[in-house]
Amino acid sequence: MSANRASNVVVLGGDGFCGWPTSLRLSRQGFNVTIVDNLVRRKTDVELGTKSLTPISPIDTRLAAWQEVTGQDLCHVDIDIAEDYASLVALLRDLQPQAVVHFGEQRAAPYSMKSPRHKRYTIDNNINATHNLLCGIVETGLDIHVVHLGTMGVYGYGTAGLKIPEGYLPVQVEAEGVRHEMDIIYPPNPGSVYHMTKTLDALMFFYYNKNDQVRITDLHQGIVWGTNTADTLADERLINRFDYEGDYGTVLNRFLMQSVVGHPITVYGTGGQTRAFIHIRDTARCVNLAIDNPPERGERVKIFNQVTETHRVRDLARLVGQLTDAEVRYYTNPRNEALENDLRVENRQFLDLGLAPVTLSEGLLEEVIEVARRYADRCDPAKIIADSTWRADIPVDRVGSQEPNRWQPDTG
Amino acid sequence: MSANRASNVVVLGGDGFCGWPTSLRLSRQGFNVTIVDNLVRRKTDVELGTKSLTPISPIDTRLAAWQEVTGQDLCHVDIDIAEDYASLVALLRDLQPQAVVHFGEQRAAPYSMKSPRHKRYTIDNNINATHNLLCGIVETGLDIHVVHLGTMGVYGYGTAGLKIPEGYLPVQVEAEGVRHEMDIIYPPNPGSVYHMTKTLDALMFFYYNKNDQVRITDLHQGIVWGTNTADTLADERLINRFDYEGDYGTVLNRFLMQSVVGHPITVYGTGGQTRAFIHIRDTARCVNLAIDNPPERGERVKIFNQVTETHRVRDLARLVGQLTDAEVRYYTNPRNEALENDLRVENRQFLDLGLAPVTLSEGLLEEVIEVARRYADRCDPAKIIADSTWRADIPVDRVGSQEPNRWQPDTG
Repeated sequence: MSANRASNVVVLGGDGFCGWPTSLRLSRQGFNVTIVDNLVRRKTDVELGTKSLTPISPIDTRLAAWQEVTGQDLCHVDIDIAEDYASLVALLRDLQPQAVVHFGEQRAAPYSMKSPRHKRYTIDNNINATHNLLCGIVETGLDIHVVHLGTMGVYGYGTAGLKIPEGYLPVQVEAEGVRHEMDIIYPPNPGSVYHMTKTLDALMFFYYNKNDQVRITDLHQGIVWGTNTADTLADERLINRFDYEGDYGTVLNRFLMQSVVGHPITVYGTGGQTRAFIHIRDTARCVNLAIDNPPERGERVKIFNQVTETHRVRDLARLVGQLTDAEVRYYTNPRNEALENDLRVENRQFLDLGLAPVTLSEGLLEEVIEVARRYADRCDPAKIIADSTWRADIPVDRVGSQEPNRWQPDTG
Repeated sequence: MSANRASNVVVLGGDGFCGWPTSLRLSRQGFNVTIVDNLVRRKTDVELGTKSLTPISPIDTRLAAWQEVTGQDLCHVDIDIAEDYASLVALLRDLQPQAVVHFGEQRAAPYSMKSPRHKRYTIDNNINATHNLLCGIVETGLDIHVVHLGTMGVYGYGTAGLKIPEGYLPVQVEAEGVRHEMDIIYPPNPGSVYHMTKTLDALMFFYYNKNDQVRITDLHQGIVWGTNTADTLADERLINRFDYEGDYGTVLNRFLMQSVVGHPITVYGTGGQTRAFIHIRDTARCVNLAIDNPPERGERVKIFNQVTETHRVRDLARLVGQLTDAEVRYYTNPRNEALENDLRVENRQFLDLGLAPVTLSEGLLEEVIEVARRYADRCDPAKIIADSTWRADIPVDRVGSQEPNRWQPDTG
């Protein structure tokens, strides 16, 4: 094992859907992993009166199980990084981590649009979390690599035929008869308050990288599907979250789970939205690759598009419908977005680093269906339809208004 | 007086250097002005152990004097808009203002760089203040025009010969043999944590304008010089702030005041920085023009460059030196910036709306000197040199290290 492999890594938000399997992978790869998590995602389940479809264990049970299964120690520290700057800095000084993986943000667009309180929480939490991390790293004087979970949503959708590059866009400007060349950050076009926070993060990364030479990798991730990785399958106590409800559930997993419980597949709008996807196993792999390939000190922020394929939502609905005989139904779209959009995404960098992506065609859809079947009795059908809205002209009670409450789940 | 002129206007930060003369101007123009200010700028004077060179009156005295002099009522409400969202929303509902002028942010770059605490305060305060305002306007459903005091600093300095447009930049992208045209927000390049907050503001404006059709004008202001307007000169109790110290003092006013008290003129670095300027009288006029010329509902964010001329810092130092026989001295520059930069700025929009700018050549330099002479005995020489630094390689005690404490003020 190289010295590099024995280094400390801190995973902010390491108890969450992406953070947990990533923490396990990094632990298995030999990093000494410290999870920093204030368990807010579990508390949000309490707020929303919902729960993960899979029965996730308490964090202490998770850590004990991992120790039992692998012999590896995984630590958990409960710090609210957006509030408790002093504890965060003390931790950084103490651990002197090689890298901090930053999943520590409110990550659901519908949740960020539920109410003024939710909008304000998302802004306040995400901006202060990211800024505290950057400010804290500068204060310690340590050369810590930040690996941040961003989103494809920073680009916006509907890029008029332009293949989305990995973060930077070379442009030309004609002015006063002179041609100027600039290499700019791709112009941000966020679609929700949540997505906006990630565009604000990007600017903070730009500044702290420029002024203080903080080494930063920003991962512009697509929609994650799947539930488990080899690590989370090693013991039932290690099982990962499965969000199926209207706020935190994401499109493909939701479709698969809906088909299992006998709910119509919920397509919002025409389903003409094209989205980028990645399997949860590749999320963990990509973060690992990012840690292993940091930017040099003084190099600009390294931006990866962390996506492996793109699909149109109604095609996914059709695919899941065929696979499971479920009905596809179209609901009022609560979002402000184009009815139809194309999306082509550059993703060479991770492929060049050796990523061999999991794709929809490789049988893992069945695995999600299997997980959904196994825990279908934990589903609360009342939570499936979103109750957030982006638009003053579409009040919350019209979202999912098409034939509401007509169906019942056919679980045991 | 038109109905428009009798409308309510709220001025956030209306007790500050720009906010106070702007509030008076708007009141004189017939708007019913409500100042919202938590008096944090006065409290920051307490924190820094400094004070305005001019003896500013308590806010209540200011308001009473204005009533006495003009017969106009000016209200003051003490709300921390970054913290107390509920009171802000209640005020908006109550007043239903035509416009909210938003000066309510921490506005000094050196202050924002003093320490982690100051960086974090600047981020937390400015971002939540702006977001609370936008979120609150959407919550009320009122069609309120936001007029925001931004900064030329969002563009960064040193634009490689490109004349800085007013906010938007048409660019071309060549990709896969196809030429794309985009009209983007000018790529932000902030030079301090403070400046960064204004680039984050710009993204929030972009989003709330796009998603909720909030009408917004963003004023990218240069460095303000001068102290008084016709309104603040109407009574000594109405006198405006004059910041001369290292954090809040700005370059031209500082030079003039230094020459009066016998301090060497403090040029940081080579003085090769070219900056954009505007007189305080034009600040108030420009905000007035912006209120009178709002964007249409559904129109994108209107961006003005609120500047009237550009000058190189060492040329200003020389000018002031000639005017006053003061010595020009070069100090270690605490900022991360190019030694020399050119700056050309488009500012047609305000000129086309009728602005006849006050320029340096019009005798108002003498007015500043006169104000500085009158109150020179209030100057604390120990506060003149900045004690913030942008750079780990230049510790605070090296800023202004060139022959420190060699001089004494020659005030009465």
